Amino acid sequence: MPLAIEPLSKSAFEPFGEVIEIEGAETRLINEGFATRFHALARVNVSRGRGRPIVSLFRAIQRPMPIKITMLERHPLGSQAFFPLNPSEWLIVVAEGGDAPDLATLRCFRARGDQGVNYARGIWHYPVLILAPWQDFLVVDRDGKGNNLEEHTFAAGSEVELDIGPDDIQ
Amino acid sequence: MPLAIEPLSKSAFEPFGEVIEIEGAETRLINEGFATRFHALARVNVSRGRGRPIVSLFRAIQRPMPIKITMLERHPLGSQAFFPLNPSEWLIVVAEGGDAPDLATLRCFRARGDQGVNYARGIWHYPVLILAPWQDFLVVDRDGKGNNLEEHTFAAGSEVELDIGPDDIQ
Repeated sequence: MPLAIEPLSKSAFEPFGEVIEIEGAETRLINEGFATRFHALARVNVSRGRGRPIVSLFRAIQRPMPIKITMLERHPLGSQAFFPLNPSEWLIVVAEGGDAPDLATLRCFRARGDQGVNYARGIWHYPVLILAPWQDFLVVDRDGKGNNLEEHTFAAGSEVELDIGPDDIQ
Repeated sequence: MPLAIEPLSKSAFEPFGEVIEIEGAETRLINEGFATRFHALARVNVSRGRGRPIVSLFRAIQRPMPIKITMLERHPLGSQAFFPLNPSEWLIVVAEGGDAPDLATLRCFRARGDQGVNYARGIWHYPVLILAPWQDFLVVDRDGKGNNLEEHTFAAGSEVELDIGPDDIQ
């Protein structure tokens, strides 16, 4: 059975991290009224092991369809935030679990082009996954010593196909 | 004399902070070749006074033209990064100086829509300044106790007009 794709929302994503979006934010009118601040939508948590927060850019290209999830990764030392810089919809695949992901909890969310996410430290997730030919992201994560990348490849026959139809491609 | 507007570049902005852009970045091919990471374009420096890094969104609206710079602000406890989420050009006004800005060093940079900046801790700058009717930004700065905003209003007659022509409006 292909994995269904759910719309991304703060409540649905709560076990995995934060959704970075204007909707529902604490707002502050600043700069003599010429700007609104949507405050603290994500909290960067990278200090473990003397990590330091950094801002990077990612340029992603589309993987061949159909998308089969054969592995997940996680960052044991820090959170990782993604925000799209082109307004296409994109996908987020996550699972609960400890030393290994629990594939029974695998979920796929479709983000709008004006929604980002901040994976909480240690959350199993698939690498950046897009629906357009290419898409750039601003990324806030950790620099510093220590192993901050763990990968888990699924057992043979356990791969999960995403339920992406032709209309989903951007 | 109106203040001339210079193109934003890493070398020109070096006294004030970092330019967040793909050009000239350290690149890392990741995700089986399906993404490129342009690594550590800005270093978030907000730990003074037990500050914590946060991600926020700003929505700016255009100020009435002509733009007169009558004040600057600075954040004594942390860096502040801005990256545009709509690809319009935008403006950055900064000055050197310690307890007060040195107006003889005032400079205005025009950023492309794919360039962000990270103001270094304590750098005098004007609030977000755009050339389109409105523009959203992703902002990485500091949450926590302590006064992280200082403002300096210029003496009467010291305001500086920016040299923005009709063709500059986005």
